[in-house]
Order: sequence, then structure tokens, then C-alpha cells
Amino acid sequence: LVCRVELICIGNELLIGKTLNTNAHWLSRRLTCIGCTVRRATVVRDEIKEIADSLNEALARKPDFIITTGGLGPTFDDMTLEGVGYGIDRPLEMNKEARGMLKERYLEFKREGRLKNLTWTKYRLKMARIPQGGKPIKNPVGTAPAVLIEENKTTILILPGVPMEMEAIFESFIPLLKDKSGNASYMERGLKVKGIPESEMAAMIDVVMQKHPSVYIKSHPIGLGQESCIELHLTTVNVNREIAIEEINQAFIEISNLISERGKRTQSCCEISEA
Amino acid sequence: LVCRVELICIGNELLIGKTLNTNAHWLSRRLTCIGCTVRRATVVRDEIKEIADSLNEALARKPDFIITTGGLGPTFDDMTLEGVGYGIDRPLEMNKEARGMLKERYLEFKREGRLKNLTWTKYRLKMARIPQGGKPIKNPVGTAPAVLIEENKTTILILPGVPMEMEAIFESFIPLLKDKSGNASYMERGLKVKGIPESEMAAMIDVVMQKHPSVYIKSHPIGLGQESCIELHLTTVNVNREIAIEEINQAFIEISNLISERGKRTQSCCEISEA
Repeated sequence: LVCRVELICIGNELLIGKTLNTNAHWLSRRLTCIGCTVRRATVVRDEIKEIADSLNEALARKPDFIITTGGLGPTFDDMTLEGVGYGIDRPLEMNKEARGMLKERYLEFKREGRLKNLTWTKYRLKMARIPQGGKPIKNPVGTAPAVLIEENKTTILILPGVPMEMEAIFESFIPLLKDKSGNASYMERGLKVKGIPESEMAAMIDVVMQKHPSVYIKSHPIGLGQESCIELHLTTVNVNREIAIEEINQAFIEISNLISERGKRTQSCCEISEA
Repeated sequence: LVCRVELICIGNELLIGKTLNTNAHWLSRRLTCIGCTVRRATVVRDEIKEIADSLNEALARKPDFIITTGGLGPTFDDMTLEGVGYGIDRPLEMNKEARGMLKERYLEFKREGRLKNLTWTKYRLKMARIPQGGKPIKNPVGTAPAVLIEENKTTILILPGVPMEMEAIFESFIPLLKDKSGNASYMERGLKVKGIPESEMAAMIDVVMQKHPSVYIKSHPIGLGQESCIELHLTTVNVNREIAIEEINQAFIEISNLISERGKRTQSCCEISEA
């Protein structure tokens, strides 16, 4: 039971290097920690065809969920709903529920003095025009509603790009995602190794991973020259939490032992510290 | 004359939310500033098929450059060269030049006492096995060489994932990229607006962009409630630097005027500050 997720992040600001894509990072972390597997993340420009194409490419890989971020606001460059509708061939329709959510928000703005009168300009109405069959989700933090659409066996979750809004709405979908992942447990452990080149660590990683195929061990070089070290990162996912803990701990002990032995053997400055 | 670039970032660490994808951000910024257009960024797992598929999907869109990051090291999960070779149907071949670069680096490790003897293990040799027709590029900072491959009319630049290594190698390709972009100039200006909802800014943006189609104006909501404001970000690219400056300044003045007028008209707390 694996819950496979793809991310599609929409926005020129990400591709001109103005905005660091913390949304993809935050979502990847949250999804991984609840036992889901993020299979791919795609960043596209604010163009209807790009949004539609990337959505269809992701749908063809049949993930359980596709989560999009960005492009839900009132300005000309907010094209996500139009792109999604175009991609899966569902015309945009004025959604009364979504309009009700917007009205509530704008009346609040009026009370706060940020808005004189609520007029339904085309810019405001745009946020309530969602692809046929889509369900609007209340944005508890910002203005534009999120949208949920089922397409074949994939659930498409369309979230805003403003991180606080995206995060708040995402949290309400955790039960649905956990249900799909079989409530699997994700475990990780890390250690830092000094004084062993990565090309030598490679053989030790192979030995331990052959004994523990459910544990994935990645090595990450950090720093330069004499100050450099290797960070080892061990991860595992299992629907049985006890097995996940047992496996990761066993693998951790074994790789630590191999590193210590090598240190003794070569009389080098091999050091281990737990990350 | 537009230089179209796609990024492919390879590494599970990016999709489990361990590592923030600063490489995509850094590359997007550098490429944009030298007049290139980053069309898409794709993040895939350490899997040969995923690397091959994402490369072929990008090649089908015929960009001028594809830049990959990550997966060039000695460990089992470093699969970029194999994935690329598999994708474009070029067998891996032992490259003497690449092996020479590795030897030089390992002899340095030996002098520093980090390595006892240089033995050509399969892990080390792997970094010198590159797809047929590929050209190794010296890594001035780390161990694994980068690789340059021409495929049809696309140049594939395969960079390491360690940021310092990736950045150092990228810099040497700037003349090639600038040549392709016609040495175009990228200009940007920003301002922050308080007290106007984004749905009202939308109309002003439309007015200014209709007069200045070469200038792109994006609005980014920042902060929450009464503390919220809109950041406007104006960008333009032009092979003529003077025109780029003139256009962005004109658009900046016009949008600033519209915001000021609206402030006077509504007696609201509309404020502008230059970002």
C-alpha cells in the first residue's frame, strides 16, 4: 500500500529565481512523514498550456494524488483553474459555494475598512469559476478558495501559492492522505562521517542495504577539502511502526560498526557523530 | 532570440523534503539574469527510468539547454549518467579524460592523508563511465566530473548536486548561454502596496501591461490581515539594454501613479514603498 503523490508548482516567480520553492519542500516533508511517496515535482510557468500539459503528463503516470500550488488569485497571471479545466476538458463554471466563500471574505475586508463596497468585478468572480465537478475548499487564511477534483482514480488538490494559505488547507487533507498510505510510518536516522571518502563509503552502504533492503541509505557530501564530511541519511517506510523502528536501528548500528572498524583498520581520523 | 532552458533536478532527498532545492533557485536566478528563459524545472527520484523519461520529455519540448543536477557520485543511488545514457540510447563508455580528472583528485586526497592508496574500485570507475559522445568537464571543487552532451539541437549539461560544485562548473558555461540568449538584458523593479486588495490591483496591472506588453507585472500577497500588503514585481527582457531600462521605468511610474490616484480617491491608507 503506497500512496503516490505528484506536485505541480505553478508560477513564473519560481522559474526566474525570485521565490525559493519552499512549498514543494514543505509538502514533500509533510507527505513523506505521513507515509506518502512524492514521485515527482514539476514547476511550470503561468501559461494555460503548460499547466494543462504538466497535469496530463502527471495523470498519465496514475498517481493517487496530484497537488498543485499557485495561480488561484484574481490577477491575469492566475491561470491554474483555467489550465486544469482545459487539461481535463471540463469547462469552468460559476460555483455558488465558492462565491459565497469569497463574499464572506470581502465583507470582512469591508468591516476592516480595506474595501469600500463589494462589487463583483471580473477579477473577483474569476476565483469562483472552477472546473465542472470541482469542489471548492474554504481558504481559512486568504481569499481564493482551494479546489478538489476527482479525475479517473486520481484526486487533484488545487492549493493557493501563498505558503500560509497552502499549509492551512493542506492540513485538513491529512486524514484522507493517511488513509490512502495505510497510515504507514516513516523513520529516519542520520550520522556524519569524517575522514572517509564517499567512494569508500559506497561499498559499506552496499553491504548494509543488501542486508536491509527496506532501508534506503543516502550519502551527502558536506563542506570542502579537509573540513569536508559525509552525511549519511537512513530512511524507511513501513505500515508496521515497530518493524520500521527495528529496521532503521539495525541498519544504523551496522553502518556505524563498519565505519568504526575502518577507522581502526586505517588509523585514520575517521569520526562518527549522530546527526 | 530566446534561450530556452529546462532544469532536471535528481535526488530522493529533494522529494522527501530533506533538502530544499536551492540549486533550482540559484540556477533559475543566474539564467534569468543573463537573459535566458527557464521554461520548466522537474524534480525526479534516483531511478534510471525516471531520469531517462524526464530527459526525453524535456528533449521533446526542444529547449536550447537542459541542465541536470545531482546523481554523479560513486554511490549506488548516483544514477544520472546511466539514466541519461539509457534515455538517449548511448551506451556508457570508460572515458580516459574523466578518469584522468578523478586520478588527479584522488592523488590530492592521498597527499592530504585522506586516502591510503588509490585503487580503481568499481565505485570510483563509475564516475568516469559517461554516455557515448559526452565530454567530461573538470570539477574544480569536488570529485565527480560534470558532462556535456549534444543531442539533436539541445545541449545537455550534467552538473553535480553539491551546490558549491554545481555553481563553480555552471559559471564556466555563462559565455555559451549568453551567446545563445543574444546577450539579452533582464531588468526588474519592485514595489510594495498597502491597503489595496489584490482584486483591485488586478485592474491596474491590466491597464499598464496593455500599454507595455514587454513588461510582465506579477502581484505577490505578503503577510496576513491588517498587516498584509501586495508586492508588485515588474520584469522585462530585451536584447537592447536601453529599451529594457526605459520600458521597465515607464511601467513602474505608471503603476505607481495609478496606485497613488486610487489612494487619493478613496482616502484609504494606500501606501507605496519601493522594494
